[in-house]
Amino acid sequence: MPMNTLTIREIEALAERALVKAGATQEAGASVAKAIAAAERDGIPSHGLAYLGTYCEHLAFGKVIGSAVPKVMQEMPGTIVVDAGSGFAHPATDAGFARLVPVARGQGIALMAVRNSYNCGVLGYHTEQLARQGLLGLGFTNAPASIAASGGRKAVLGTNPWSIAVPDGPGGASIVIDQSASVVAKSEVAKRAREGKPIPLGWTLGPDGEPTTDPNLGLKGTMLPAGGYKGVGSALLVELMAACLAGAVIGAKASPFSGTAGGPPRTGQCFIAIAPEPASGGEFNTRCRELVAALTQEASAHVPGKRRRAAREKAERGGVDVDPAILEKVRALAGA
Amino acid sequence: MPMNTLTIREIEALAERALVKAGATQEAGASVAKAIAAAERDGIPSHGLAYLGTYCEHLAFGKVIGSAVPKVMQEMPGTIVVDAGSGFAHPATDAGFARLVPVARGQGIALMAVRNSYNCGVLGYHTEQLARQGLLGLGFTNAPASIAASGGRKAVLGTNPWSIAVPDGPGGASIVIDQSASVVAKSEVAKRAREGKPIPLGWTLGPDGEPTTDPNLGLKGTMLPAGGYKGVGSALLVELMAACLAGAVIGAKASPFSGTAGGPPRTGQCFIAIAPEPASGGEFNTRCRELVAALTQEASAHVPGKRRRAAREKAERGGVDVDPAILEKVRALAGA
Repeated sequence: MPMNTLTIREIEALAERALVKAGATQEAGASVAKAIAAAERDGIPSHGLAYLGTYCEHLAFGKVIGSAVPKVMQEMPGTIVVDAGSGFAHPATDAGFARLVPVARGQGIALMAVRNSYNCGVLGYHTEQLARQGLLGLGFTNAPASIAASGGRKAVLGTNPWSIAVPDGPGGASIVIDQSASVVAKSEVAKRAREGKPIPLGWTLGPDGEPTTDPNLGLKGTMLPAGGYKGVGSALLVELMAACLAGAVIGAKASPFSGTAGGPPRTGQCFIAIAPEPASGGEFNTRCRELVAALTQEASAHVPGKRRRAAREKAERGGVDVDPAILEKVRALAGA
Repeated sequence: MPMNTLTIREIEALAERALVKAGATQEAGASVAKAIAAAERDGIPSHGLAYLGTYCEHLAFGKVIGSAVPKVMQEMPGTIVVDAGSGFAHPATDAGFARLVPVARGQGIALMAVRNSYNCGVLGYHTEQLARQGLLGLGFTNAPASIAASGGRKAVLGTNPWSIAVPDGPGGASIVIDQSASVVAKSEVAKRAREGKPIPLGWTLGPDGEPTTDPNLGLKGTMLPAGGYKGVGSALLVELMAACLAGAVIGAKASPFSGTAGGPPRTGQCFIAIAPEPASGGEFNTRCRELVAALTQEASAHVPGKRRRAAREKAERGGVDVDPAILEKVRALAGA
């Protein structure tokens, strides 16, 4: 394999070393590293090794607490609460899911609220863990504000993704949806700013509330919601679930996920795990197959999760090509 | 009051008489009539008395079974299933909520799946019933297909709304979101077709998959999703919850909600009721107030549910002005 082609295990090991070296506990480092490797594997490099530098920097500046140990509580028969202690979201999610999964199987449905948390990376990574256990997984995660209310100019809601992952036998999820409320990811605007390139109209508004092609103005203004007020509605749904219901800090008050200032954002996540067979009278798998058949009757039609699955199969066979510049930085962080 | 200004109670009584006369049981007629009156009260006349003729016609043609008695089952400690028996969705929801509410209070979260159901009218009407009981209410309802998959031309998903209603003391919900996956409601396109008026580009595609301003072509083609593929994702979320999870008929196979042909659509609903205080460590109301304060810091910004609330206050004081032509038809249906 070429020098910059790594196996998924190699990516995971490198990331884990870097995170532990930067101050994460072994358990937190391993948990986050696994998600980083999964992002590289699934063709989502923005949340793979390219993000590792930010994580390490945030450990150094106390935006995320490396030594935090998540605390899992069962507040009601169907309600699990996790206090992430301003540590990484990933070990908090892992620890909580270990309780959530058996509770959901026994109750038919269970909720997990994560507070004092942090950016959870790819939300669909987490809901897919539930799907792998045979549960229908719903997920919500809030973020520092970058979208305005309908009719407003000031950022009050994050790009706030939601996700659903569908169990499909022991192999994994047949459908994974993971979508934010904005037209494009904020990272895409930041990338254009770094490259000195304009952005299309319709991605952002400037601080004056007017459309702009200047990514620097866009970063100072707001991200446009996908589908207008319906995108705002989607961001609000997530804010209600991941911030209000989880007792986490709302996006309008949270410190940024980027940069080193402001301390821990203390944002939240919320997951709902559902046993599909009792609710559907045993029809769930049949209905899902009918739905996928309807969606794929036209060769040109797209089923969410398909691209990730294709990238995954390729990566499992032949490894992942990592940008050489990123790989060099990562190796330095890992002391490798 | 002018001849065509009715109190909410008068609207309800008229609608109930018409529905029972057309074959609904007293219980079903009362349940649907209450929702019709609520739609008129909340400024949503499309789902008010204007829809009553369709309901009565569907009773006559067996698209909805007037004599159906909903069957409520508790399949798991947190899973309620309602078989609507191809009757109206409203009495099925009422009967199921009577079980769902105490279960959600005791478990922290509970799910209700409704199968063999029908168009439930305004989805936010139902989630608001949960919010009035102090529970965070989530709702999903699927519909016969009218939206294509991303990259496709054939309708495979309904306009599929989801809703969330937030409890706010005994008075009602402070935030209600109820939004479909399409740019506009299909009824809006049908209205333009009846009036012989063009529709804006961006509402529909014709059967050839091309944008059209002809509402008749649009009705034969597909409704455009709000926010492109993210609107499709939203429709899919709802299809997974309201059809697959509820063991109901998927939109791609369901008979139409409009017209008299095809028998019962047997589509579904799904509701999740959540006790907000245990999940949030008692912070839920505080966080919601912070969120509403952030949303309303700009006078021009819109909070979902505000328009409904304003219409409601006006209607409770001074009644509702009903279109005289519709009122005449309704009085004929009621034999009044």
